Amino acid sequence: MKKFINDPLQVVDETIAGILKAYPEHLRMAKESPRALVRADAPIKGKVAICTGGGSGHIPVFLGYVGPGLLDGVSVGNVFSSPSSDAMLAATREVDGGAGVLYLFGNYSGDKMNFEMAAEMAGMDDIPVKSSIAVDDVASAPRPQRERRRGIAGIFFAYKIAGAKADTMASLDEVKATADMVIENTCTMGVALGPCTIPAVGKPNFTIADDEMEIGMGIHGEPGIERTKLKKADEVATIMVERVINDLPFRSGDEVAILVNGLGATPPEELFTLNNKIYDILKDYRIKVYKTFVGEYATSMEMAGASLSLLRLNDEFKKLLDAPAYSPFLLQWK
Amino acid sequence: MKKFINDPLQVVDETIAGILKAYPEHLRMAKESPRALVRADAPIKGKVAICTGGGSGHIPVFLGYVGPGLLDGVSVGNVFSSPSSDAMLAATREVDGGAGVLYLFGNYSGDKMNFEMAAEMAGMDDIPVKSSIAVDDVASAPRPQRERRRGIAGIFFAYKIAGAKADTMASLDEVKATADMVIENTCTMGVALGPCTIPAVGKPNFTIADDEMEIGMGIHGEPGIERTKLKKADEVATIMVERVINDLPFRSGDEVAILVNGLGATPPEELFTLNNKIYDILKDYRIKVYKTFVGEYATSMEMAGASLSLLRLNDEFKKLLDAPAYSPFLLQWK
Repeated sequence: MKKFINDPLQVVDETIAGILKAYPEHLRMAKESPRALVRADAPIKGKVAICTGGGSGHIPVFLGYVGPGLLDGVSVGNVFSSPSSDAMLAATREVDGGAGVLYLFGNYSGDKMNFEMAAEMAGMDDIPVKSSIAVDDVASAPRPQRERRRGIAGIFFAYKIAGAKADTMASLDEVKATADMVIENTCTMGVALGPCTIPAVGKPNFTIADDEMEIGMGIHGEPGIERTKLKKADEVATIMVERVINDLPFRSGDEVAILVNGLGATPPEELFTLNNKIYDILKDYRIKVYKTFVGEYATSMEMAGASLSLLRLNDEFKKLLDAPAYSPFLLQWK
Repeated sequence: MKKFINDPLQVVDETIAGILKAYPEHLRMAKESPRALVRADAPIKGKVAICTGGGSGHIPVFLGYVGPGLLDGVSVGNVFSSPSSDAMLAATREVDGGAGVLYLFGNYSGDKMNFEMAAEMAGMDDIPVKSSIAVDDVASAPRPQRERRRGIAGIFFAYKIAGAKADTMASLDEVKATADMVIENTCTMGVALGPCTIPAVGKPNFTIADDEMEIGMGIHGEPGIERTKLKKADEVATIMVERVINDLPFRSGDEVAILVNGLGATPPEELFTLNNKIYDILKDYRIKVYKTFVGEYATSMEMAGASLSLLRLNDEFKKLLDAPAYSPFLLQWK
């Protein structure tokens, strides 16, 4: 295991410490939990607050999405493990500005259970909480069983747009409805080339031959839909686009935002090579690209691979996607 | 070689094509060369233009630094190879707004030779050109032979600050003096854990044992100063900080900006773990951290490793570092 770490059991706490030293004006630790981080200026009075959370090892997911125009708080689990409900509650208490809190997170059983418990406890504090759960990974279950799908990189669009909606001082129900509609219109498909190593485990989380790739693998190494020989970038792009647009389905005349996400070790050069073909295929389908994001928006440490997310846009989504937002972890939008 | 590519000889042109499709409002190809990119709104009348360039495989270096508040144009070489002087000239002609052009690039012999030729040719067009050459890699030569040092991630600070200086409508001499002063006050030290593969070569650019690291290795795999057993993050951070601060030297009372840069495959979690210790050591030396950047600012495709750059600040540098700037390739500053 070649990593810049000290004690494998301390990696999350040392990462958090390094983050708070890097961005002291941006984030602070919640008083009641060292595993809960909130905006330095939380709570924002009268604004619906949004909290997320999940396992570590995915930066900028989850904690990198806290900031103005985005989320208000986050709970931080061990690598690839759910945070505790106590950490979630600690963040909730500190971000509530009197308008309630939306929990916006990915569909994993541990996270779901703990966020449900945190919501119940918050209810006892008279903090109204609702939840929106990202289920964008089209490879993880057939569309009729969408509630079984995992949440992966496409949650980025829900963070950005729900965050901007909350900034309009919309109600908790409105912010939740916006997040749910983004999730409903987002589809993601990933391809893995290589594994990563959880520090406390010390060996790669899966094995894959030098000439193989796995289509549809999850961001923790969950099995995908097919293991094949390594294909050219244009073929990979075609598989991803076809699968994604047939799922929703996206139709001729739709306007979309693209996210070409790198899982960790895959260089930007390769992501742009994928985008070159993705764009052309969408053009052939007469699907219009409104905005493209390329980079590392949801990683799995040093995993090699990429995913494509498409979001079907409407006028409100476009406006909210373009609204100002800031986090030092993120690629910038204007 | 596990990469999302098509023809290994086409990777650079396909990357550029994918970039132009992703960010059509931000960048355009120069009329006279498909290997020159300029700001979509170039030239900016009356402003000193800044051009950079170098081999591919380092995104966001070099092309990711073109944008408002940053650079105006870039020439793009093959992977780890200098761009042609023709490409440099094509960018130069298209960005010149009547106030001259600064070439700001890293100290590599091919780049130096070609930029010199481009400057001569630009002179024949009556475009005044000056050059500033980044030499921040403290491991590549002793300080008395600074002119032999390579330019690596620390060029980021020169891009940002010289770009902001040009935005003040300063003269070519003033922008060059600012860039030179940033370079003079920037020191970088890198550590490599694993290699990368040039697509056209097809095999890793160096070998390193599973329990080894190389201190001071260059971003193309140039030999460093020591190959040692893998060390803990805190030890690595200590080596990097000690080497950097003793070089300039940085002194008690200095105010600095930190860049903890990932070379490609190294996850942000590990970079923040390094920053956790870097910050503490600087504090022990009473060196004040004004601003911290953590992320991938200069990569070597999927190389594993990290570097630390420190910039000694003065009041003008702080103001220029904080000035607005935009590129969709970059981590955001406020």
